[in-house]
Amino acid sequence: MAVYTEVTDGDLDRFLEQYDVGRALSCKGIAEGVENSNFLVTTDTGPLILTLYEKRVARGDLPFFLGLMDHLASRDIPCPTPIRGRDGESLRELAGRPAALIAFLPGMWPRRITAHHCDRLGTALAHLHDAGRDFAMTRRNTLGLADWRPLFAQCADHADRVHPGLAEELDTALRDLEARFPDTLPTGVIHADLFPDNVFFLRDEISGLIDFYFACTDFLTYDLAVCVNAWCFESRGEFNLTKARRLMSGYRAARDLSPAEMAALPVLAQGAAIRFLLTRLYDWVNTPEGALVRPKDPLEYLHKLRFHRSVEDPRAYGLE
Amino acid sequence: MAVYTEVTDGDLDRFLEQYDVGRALSCKGIAEGVENSNFLVTTDTGPLILTLYEKRVARGDLPFFLGLMDHLASRDIPCPTPIRGRDGESLRELAGRPAALIAFLPGMWPRRITAHHCDRLGTALAHLHDAGRDFAMTRRNTLGLADWRPLFAQCADHADRVHPGLAEELDTALRDLEARFPDTLPTGVIHADLFPDNVFFLRDEISGLIDFYFACTDFLTYDLAVCVNAWCFESRGEFNLTKARRLMSGYRAARDLSPAEMAALPVLAQGAAIRFLLTRLYDWVNTPEGALVRPKDPLEYLHKLRFHRSVEDPRAYGLE
Repeated sequence: MAVYTEVTDGDLDRFLEQYDVGRALSCKGIAEGVENSNFLVTTDTGPLILTLYEKRVARGDLPFFLGLMDHLASRDIPCPTPIRGRDGESLRELAGRPAALIAFLPGMWPRRITAHHCDRLGTALAHLHDAGRDFAMTRRNTLGLADWRPLFAQCADHADRVHPGLAEELDTALRDLEARFPDTLPTGVIHADLFPDNVFFLRDEISGLIDFYFACTDFLTYDLAVCVNAWCFESRGEFNLTKARRLMSGYRAARDLSPAEMAALPVLAQGAAIRFLLTRLYDWVNTPEGALVRPKDPLEYLHKLRFHRSVEDPRAYGLE
Repeated sequence: MAVYTEVTDGDLDRFLEQYDVGRALSCKGIAEGVENSNFLVTTDTGPLILTLYEKRVARGDLPFFLGLMDHLASRDIPCPTPIRGRDGESLRELAGRPAALIAFLPGMWPRRITAHHCDRLGTALAHLHDAGRDFAMTRRNTLGLADWRPLFAQCADHADRVHPGLAEELDTALRDLEARFPDTLPTGVIHADLFPDNVFFLRDEISGLIDFYFACTDFLTYDLAVCVNAWCFESRGEFNLTKARRLMSGYRAARDLSPAEMAALPVLAQGAAIRFLLTRLYDWVNTPEGALVRPKDPLEYLHKLRFHRSVEDPRAYGLE
């Protein structure tokens, strides 16, 4: 739940005057997203999303993110299209923050995940990877393999307070990953954060993929591993093989995995688990008491990491 | 900022099937309001507000609140109209909570209050009081004079931790109010919580009065006193006489005040100040650390109480 910056009606009117979208009829902060401030603006011409970029998003990355959304939307990926002002620009300032006006996408993110959702997600992810192939810009994954060790170092001293033995367990898992993580696999634009609240469905079909603010250039199969973690575990930690199978088959129906990609899946899934475990741990130990946003439980990802470390054979993920 | 209850797409679809409003295209939690969970739902037929009533609103009061909104809307007061289902009912259950679908009101609440806003507010408040005269139901003000002493008793022990000497100062102020509060004044339906975030403006005119969940039957002039406190002080505590004058003249243009009402204004304003001071103090000492909603500063209302206790003559509020 997040609105960090207030927008006055006068500032909003002056902002919208730079676009051909009509005048504001209302502007309501949306209680979703933890990185930016998002508003649902209605105008004479319909609903729009207004995003104010807060400090966790680097300004220098915004042209990549907005350019990528523009590119993917032009390739029929149902993702938010940045709206250009009369000057051709989609990025400007509002209330002292970088800000963009974005087309409204219908749909709701699924609160109860079904195997059908996983199937549609898999296909949409493969289409996204395919559509990103001719996107000209690149962005290093700033939460990739090389970044996990420094991130761990910033919170290792507090890890055992969160869970006894966690620091040593993470150190071992990181050492293994540093030794075994693949060097070369098919690479391209990945979403890198495709959790259920970033995927809208309407009448059982995907109507929107949102929140591209972790998108980067990395192994395509790593994106699939992020989705395995985010979509295929039940709330009590059980791995749901049916969902994983449907995610894999949905993906492979649109883009097949090479034998090297399949073989790498267990170690990529461990990497994806440790990436979210580390950022959650960092937030957990660095969120001041009384903060408006409650940090997510890092231990959920410790259980996922342990599961993937127990997997010997990629067929455990429903690959055939 | 508040969404306390999650609504699944399936539950929402089944809920909307009971109305003639089309099917849901999206549903986004709104980061406003601290008492209930509010969602902006878009359907084929346009935007709607979905409110889930959380535990701070008594279920037994909901027919009064919804009936009042219905009544006022039928008298052309720009307030949220509860939408009736095919069964004629506007109140039903969703996600285990009482829930109502409410017409969408355009406009934004003013972040920077001007004297013009106060003028329009005054007139709208008088119209609301006038339109409420033939509303048949009544509701006792559960945060009125008789309730302040018990509320104070629940947080008196912690008051001095918030501000040294606060307990004694409040005790004195309460004793004075108990002795001097009027017994009889023109009475009717009041909003009782008409803060700027409950008043929408569009193109400098009022487009909506919202959040009737403190509405009750009480002295009409007490409602004006609540507005004096909420609209006529600057953020550093200065009383803005120009704004108060415009509020008063805007009100009196539509409904004049009797000599008794004018004479009572200083003590009503003290009462209105102590009501918000006490509920904020209660929330301040009872909000657990790390809560999602940050309690509002009670001391803002201590300064307002002190101001009103220094007022001898109601002309200090801009009355002529």
